[in-house]
Amino acid sequence: MRFLHTADWHIGKKLHGYDLLENQKAAMEEILAIAKKEAVDAIIIAGDLYDRSVPGIESIELLNKQFIQMNLEAELPILAVSGNHDSATRLATGGPWYKQRNFHLHTTLEEALVPVEFPEVQFFLLPYFEPIAARLYFEDDSLKTIGQAVGRVVEAMASAFDPNKKQVLVSHFFVAGSLRTDSETSVEVGGLDAVPVDVFAAFDYVALGHLHSKNAIKEGKVRYSGSLLKYSLSEINDEKGVWLIDSQTMEPVFQALTPLQDIQHYQASFAELTNPTIYQTLDRQAFWHFEITDRAIIPNMMNQLREIYPFVLTVERTNGHDVVVQTTKKRSKKVAPTVVLANFFNEVTGEELTDQQREWLETGLTMALDTEKKED
Amino acid sequence: MRFLHTADWHIGKKLHGYDLLENQKAAMEEILAIAKKEAVDAIIIAGDLYDRSVPGIESIELLNKQFIQMNLEAELPILAVSGNHDSATRLATGGPWYKQRNFHLHTTLEEALVPVEFPEVQFFLLPYFEPIAARLYFEDDSLKTIGQAVGRVVEAMASAFDPNKKQVLVSHFFVAGSLRTDSETSVEVGGLDAVPVDVFAAFDYVALGHLHSKNAIKEGKVRYSGSLLKYSLSEINDEKGVWLIDSQTMEPVFQALTPLQDIQHYQASFAELTNPTIYQTLDRQAFWHFEITDRAIIPNMMNQLREIYPFVLTVERTNGHDVVVQTTKKRSKKVAPTVVLANFFNEVTGEELTDQQREWLETGLTMALDTEKKED
Repeated sequence: MRFLHTADWHIGKKLHGYDLLENQKAAMEEILAIAKKEAVDAIIIAGDLYDRSVPGIESIELLNKQFIQMNLEAELPILAVSGNHDSATRLATGGPWYKQRNFHLHTTLEEALVPVEFPEVQFFLLPYFEPIAARLYFEDDSLKTIGQAVGRVVEAMASAFDPNKKQVLVSHFFVAGSLRTDSETSVEVGGLDAVPVDVFAAFDYVALGHLHSKNAIKEGKVRYSGSLLKYSLSEINDEKGVWLIDSQTMEPVFQALTPLQDIQHYQASFAELTNPTIYQTLDRQAFWHFEITDRAIIPNMMNQLREIYPFVLTVERTNGHDVVVQTTKKRSKKVAPTVVLANFFNEVTGEELTDQQREWLETGLTMALDTEKKED
Repeated sequence: MRFLHTADWHIGKKLHGYDLLENQKAAMEEILAIAKKEAVDAIIIAGDLYDRSVPGIESIELLNKQFIQMNLEAELPILAVSGNHDSATRLATGGPWYKQRNFHLHTTLEEALVPVEFPEVQFFLLPYFEPIAARLYFEDDSLKTIGQAVGRVVEAMASAFDPNKKQVLVSHFFVAGSLRTDSETSVEVGGLDAVPVDVFAAFDYVALGHLHSKNAIKEGKVRYSGSLLKYSLSEINDEKGVWLIDSQTMEPVFQALTPLQDIQHYQASFAELTNPTIYQTLDRQAFWHFEITDRAIIPNMMNQLREIYPFVLTVERTNGHDVVVQTTKKRSKKVAPTVVLANFFNEVTGEELTDQQREWLETGLTMALDTEKKED
């Protein structure tokens, strides 16, 4: 069989105050088109279907319609789990009816232990959960960390393994060793411990959600699909898409998505940015991250830029001593600690962080924030 | 065929701060038991399934389970509409999958025009809507009032009438001439105009929700089922239950429900209420509305009463000149304008309002509040 692996749709998420529903709609429709063209036998969605536990009306309307198209109209089986951004209980509405049309949306630990059976593959759909849920379910107080809890769950799953089939796990966790981007940071740092990757050794493929980059784990059979769209500036150079997997080989093949509006970066003077001969060569409908090289104060800068580029996300002034991050009025931008520290490093040393330094920084920050969290 | 008519479940509603989920669960289970015992062919729920457009997690969990029991386990068809308390869009989640198991949950005007067909009866499921929805749907700006809008909808339904079948309408409106209780007042006065009862002349039975008393319309084929439970003190003498209808006669037969905790009223002195020989004769687990005859101040009265009667709703002091309404700390009681005016009348004249006077009062208040609303 062939299946498609996607995750982290975050329907309803805004990008620096800009509504993304149209972009999300286009991306979901592209996924459906790929699924049809590639004649896959199932679509896997590895959690964070919505961006919030109580999604807005428009988000609900959009996702409901999408599922009708995918499952009832195109008759595609869907295998999905709730993520840490979803409310498991709210998402569970309709589940028992969906199941009868091969739309399996698992939101509880209990459901995760019974595989969804395909002729050649068993799919175990493990939603995001907290260690306390495993302690209660298995009546085992020794399950303190999420790593232990997932380990115990996988152990229980193993007893249902059919030796004549392959086994695929669908889940939504932070797997140790993977890289992270800004858009999931606030939830995940301190909120989720890591699951060691070797916990998944028994599976032929592990379809993960949670981290937004498909490169969070770069090889092997344990994979993040990455998010539906670029959901943060830090994802500017990511390539978003889906994995296509043939169960014979379990080798994931990447299929990129073409976003309605990409995030782009441009460094120039204000005069250049507002010069028609330049801006006519740029995609003015993109989400823009500008670095402006001027030293002088530019009155009403953001409004002037938005007349030409309606979707300016941020403007940085890079040639003064101050780095000023401007963003939309609707929503003040929280600059990620990594960005603040990387900028500070750059100001003091005049150099960029190396990959090695960036990793030290991330690890240190995670530990610091974890400690801070525990002391709250 | 035989069907059961219920409405106004208001799952998640609290009574003077007290959680009613257990009571609601018991009542829904009793309805299911009646439906099985009476071997009905369908359960009609005429709107206000939830009390709020964004229900709490526990409410969603309870209602989801109930629907699984009724529809998937007991295999009972359900015919339901969204009411003014429901969010049509949120409630619509799962609808297209429910339909395939004969659970028809209509939330839009468009769906209302296509009847759900049974061998002998066509059911038209018309959710609560605002006149603007009809103006847009029919592209007809002359539809100003809800009466006109429902009239236009019924006209459109008539073209789908099968002369070999009977026609039943399920809907959720304030029908002119009906009586009201406190628990729906705040939403309905000013918020909903009335639909003239003769608009429904073409139907063999009209299963209404919105007003909480089964006696809101006392005879004929247009009926309110009343709410699942007593949701306000003003409903203290109501009898709650469901209608059972045989499509041969379309004569509704009332079947009462036995609430887990009833609302009761008792007038006595504080000494009597706290005297074991008296309170052992009372149902201490009921929701109590006490009238205390003492003139003296009783320190810590509510807490003393709650030690004996854990579910005291209100205590009125009736022997002083002042009528003091005490309620729970969690939630201040809004006294309905009708109650305030009836009390004032009683204080000045020493007499109760007659039914005729009460009707004048209600009509006048509705008009006054409508005018106030329009001027806001």
